[in-house]
This record gives sequence, C-alpha cells and structure tokens, in this order.
Amino acid sequence: MSIAVFGFEESARQAKALAQSLNAAFEPITVRSFPDGESLVRVTGSASLALLYRSLDQPNAKLVEVLLAAAALRDNGAAQVVLIAPYLAYMRQDMAFNPGEAISQRVIGELVSAHFDGLVTVDPHLHRVASLSEVFPGITALDVSGAPALAAALAGRLQPDTILVGPDSESRPWVESIARPPGLDVLVGEKQRFGDRDVTLVVPGIDAVRGRPAVLVDDMISSGTTLIACAGLLRNAGATSITALATHCLASDSDLARLKENGISEVIAADSVPGPVATISLAPVLAQAIAGQCWTEARRA
Amino acid sequence: MSIAVFGFEESARQAKALAQSLNAAFEPITVRSFPDGESLVRVTGSASLALLYRSLDQPNAKLVEVLLAAAALRDNGAAQVVLIAPYLAYMRQDMAFNPGEAISQRVIGELVSAHFDGLVTVDPHLHRVASLSEVFPGITALDVSGAPALAAALAGRLQPDTILVGPDSESRPWVESIARPPGLDVLVGEKQRFGDRDVTLVVPGIDAVRGRPAVLVDDMISSGTTLIACAGLLRNAGATSITALATHCLASDSDLARLKENGISEVIAADSVPGPVATISLAPVLAQAIAGQCWTEARRA
Repeated sequence: MSIAVFGFEESARQAKALAQSLNAAFEPITVRSFPDGESLVRVTGSASLALLYRSLDQPNAKLVEVLLAAAALRDNGAAQVVLIAPYLAYMRQDMAFNPGEAISQRVIGELVSAHFDGLVTVDPHLHRVASLSEVFPGITALDVSGAPALAAALAGRLQPDTILVGPDSESRPWVESIARPPGLDVLVGEKQRFGDRDVTLVVPGIDAVRGRPAVLVDDMISSGTTLIACAGLLRNAGATSITALATHCLASDSDLARLKENGISEVIAADSVPGPVATISLAPVLAQAIAGQCWTEARRA
Repeated sequence: MSIAVFGFEESARQAKALAQSLNAAFEPITVRSFPDGESLVRVTGSASLALLYRSLDQPNAKLVEVLLAAAALRDNGAAQVVLIAPYLAYMRQDMAFNPGEAISQRVIGELVSAHFDGLVTVDPHLHRVASLSEVFPGITALDVSGAPALAAALAGRLQPDTILVGPDSESRPWVESIARPPGLDVLVGEKQRFGDRDVTLVVPGIDAVRGRPAVLVDDMISSGTTLIACAGLLRNAGATSITALATHCLASDSDLARLKENGISEVIAADSVPGPVATISLAPVLAQAIAGQCWTEARRA
C-alpha cells in the first residue's frame, strides 16, 4: 500500500512535516481561482492511501476545495482518502439553540462522511456528543489529543512551581495530561457562557497562584475573551507571570496584541492553524495516531 | 401544499421578486459568522415546498451555507427543498483538462443532487453535456432560458436596423430567440479560446453592421475580454454604437470601466448576479418555469 500526504499551499509546511514523520511522500495540491470565484483544484501524484491535509479554520471555501481534491485523488487511483484536519470547524453547533438554526455539526459530519474514508483531527471542541464517531457516521474518525505535544513544548522552559490553569471542568482530564509529564499543579475554572463572546469565569482555589507563574491552557483561543477574563483573576490573585498555551489559536494579530496588553506575556500554540504563535508541531502526535490505525480495513463499500 | 421562497441577504430583492411572481411568501435566511469563519445559518418560517434562492457566483462559501440552510428547512418541516440558483457555478469543468484536475462539474452536481430535490437555473454554461439532468442525477433540474427576459428588455429601446451579435455557434439558437420578438438581424461569431482570459474571435458576415447599431449578446460576461475583442471587430466594421447584453454579469467595476473605455457604451444584464448593470428581472421566467413543474412528484425517496 502506497501512502502520501497531500497538502494545500497555506499549510504546506505542516503537511510536509507530517509526511516526514510518517516516512511518506508529500504532494502539493494547487488551487487556481476563476473570475466567478470557482476553484480549479489539481492534485499531483497518487497513492492508494491518500492523506489530505487541511485545517478547516475559515472552513466554507476550504470545505468545497477538499471535496474537489478528494474526488481528484480518487480519479487518480486512491483507494482511500482520509481528511487530516487538525482544526475541525462546525463541531459546536450540535443542536438548534434557536428555532430554525441549522445543526451544522450534523450537516458537516455527514458531508465529510460521504466524501472521505476517514477523518483525523486534534482536540475537537465537542460538547453534547461523547465521541467523534457519532458525528462522522460510518467512517474511521480519530480524535487525537494534542496534550503530549503541548506537554513536550513546556518541558524545560518552566519554573517547577508553575501552575497550569484550565478553563472548565470538561477540560480537566486533558489539562491534567499536560501537567503530568512536567509534574505541575493544576487549577480548573468554571466558565459560564452568555454568548460566543460573553463569558464569566471563576477559578476555585485560585489563591494558590500567589507568587507563582501561571500557564492558562485551553483547546482553542478564539477572540481571547476567556483568556483575558482568566488572566485578570490570576493577576488579582498574585500570579507572577501569565502565559497562554493552546492547541488551536484562531486569534487575529489585534486579538494577540490585546492579550499582551492584558498581561498575558506569551502565547504558545500548536500549528493546527498557521500563525505567528503556532510554533508547536502536531506532526508527531498525528503521525503516531495515523500509523497506529489499520487503514486497509476500509469501512466504505 | 404550502410554498415559500427563502432568500439570503445579498439577493433578498431578487428572491422577493420571485416570491411575488409566484404569489408565495418570502422568508429571509440570516447568516452570522463566528470568529473561526463558521456560518450560523438560520431560517424562519416553513413551507412544504421550500424554494431556496441563491446564485452561486463566488460559490464556495455560498455552497456550504445553502447546504446548511437546506438541512434547517427540512428540520423545519419542508417536504421538498429546491435550489433556485439563477447563476450556477462549476458547470464548465466537465473533464480533467490536465491530469489530476478535479472534475468539479461532477462533484458539485452530485453534491447538489444529494442535498436538494430540485435545481432551477438560468442559461447554464454547459459544453460537452447535452442537458442539466446529466449533471444532477436523480433530481428535477430545470434549465430556464433567460432569452425571453432579455428580449423583453430590448423591446422598444432599439432602432429597427440593430444587429444582434452572438459570440459563437453554440449560442446561435439562444441569440436567435432573443432577436425574434423584436425582429432583429443576427450575426454569430466564432470564438477560439486559448485559456480562460485569452480568446480570438472572428464574425462571418460582419460587414453587415456598417452604419448600424450592434448589440453583443452572451450568456455570461466574465472579465469582459471576449466582449472587448468583439467590440473592436464591430467598430472596425463600421458599427455606429455597441451595447452588451447578457444573462449573467460577473464583471467587476474596473472590468465595466474597461468595457466603456473600449467603446461599449452600455452593458445590460439580468439580475442573476446582483450588480450595477443587473437591471433585468429574471423573476418572470423563473416563476413561469417553477409554476409549470409538478413538484409534488418528488423524485427523492
């Protein structure tokens, strides 16, 4: 079975790193735009197991292009096409919060399942569903933890009395798995949401941070509002420094500047979404998960 | 059976006009964007036959949103959801012109067929396929001619010696159907393409335009390169004025300015793609085609 990683231009570096970790070939996917906004997607090379690498931040246009690329890969002879989307959009809207809202998690889940044999993602933002396989019916869906990559990035750069602070109780096991290798203490907040930009946070036991450095850990930095609220609490409680660590950083340059203004001295993120702070390679954890899966047992007819 | 037209903001005016022509309700679809680029699509109202109006110029993001809207309409009780896309993208790439190119017409055709019970479009840009039903397997696909709307727009505003000029032999029957009601002469060019922006044109019998006004007619104005080449030929042959008439105008403001600089005194287009020259309403021809179809005979299981 031949295997290759196919990557779009905006994340060619990350796709190449994954190919290297898998000892597989990398093949570029090119996209040319027509005046009406159509995309002409072209793949070079072929493989019986085609790993199509693309994070789905700003997902709408990217989704159509990955469907086009998947078809071209099959036309080129791929027996299986697996979508490697380190950041996966549309996982939060798992119900209609107001009448008439599209349940996008279901629509996108079925769409991906209809066009791919498998999906690999990192730390998806799931709420009311227990596992990815509920969202992606009939295909292999791997939910890779970014925690080992984040923990490795912390190793050797922290004072031993640093406290890791997670945003909410849902994240506790994940935050603890980052804290365990370096042996750090953990606090977990309780986040109350009143909208996607309106969040209230309390951190039980926060007095423990007095005179110690704190690292805020979250799966995703979006606009950064949650981080800023939490940083305020930590500063008031006497933390000596505040760093933020996340798998997915979607923050814009102005959002990142605002984080700095609000006392977060450094932001470190994995490279699921390319950007200035996305320095932690997810290639090792992705490669381990992909290599450990028996892809020849195709679930598709 | 209840029927309603559901429209997105960018073409609410056109969708409302269609609803009025059908004596049906209009219901707005709202879209809210999240920081990661996800769209929260919400529909209000419901109908057993839901006509989802959206042209697919700049198609990629719009395609994902119409899939989300279709799902929400079904959740709201629609028995049938029909996509009314006066401009339909991805109809040209019906084969891989180079190895590895995605055959987007097939992918998008299957995608629309999997999510909608029907499709209605106007003057689609088909080449090697004879009919829309080949592109949209298993659903009702209506190919509405914009010619009656274009002919009606010409009525009364032209000198009787005006000549209509079509771009190529494929377009002859369509151009003739526009020329017939006002009783105008027709010339048809022969277009040789060397790429999507590189076109060579000859017009057999062009000497007939000497001392007469000419109207260039095409299904689509893209960047306008074809029109400019043709206008040059007509000017050299002695045309007294040159107007352009099209169903779909995708030209940007700078493209339109360039047309004017190259002697095309006026551009008139149908309103499939909203824009400054899109003044001809397609609502009457769309309504007639939709009302003439027996939608209760659903072809979907």
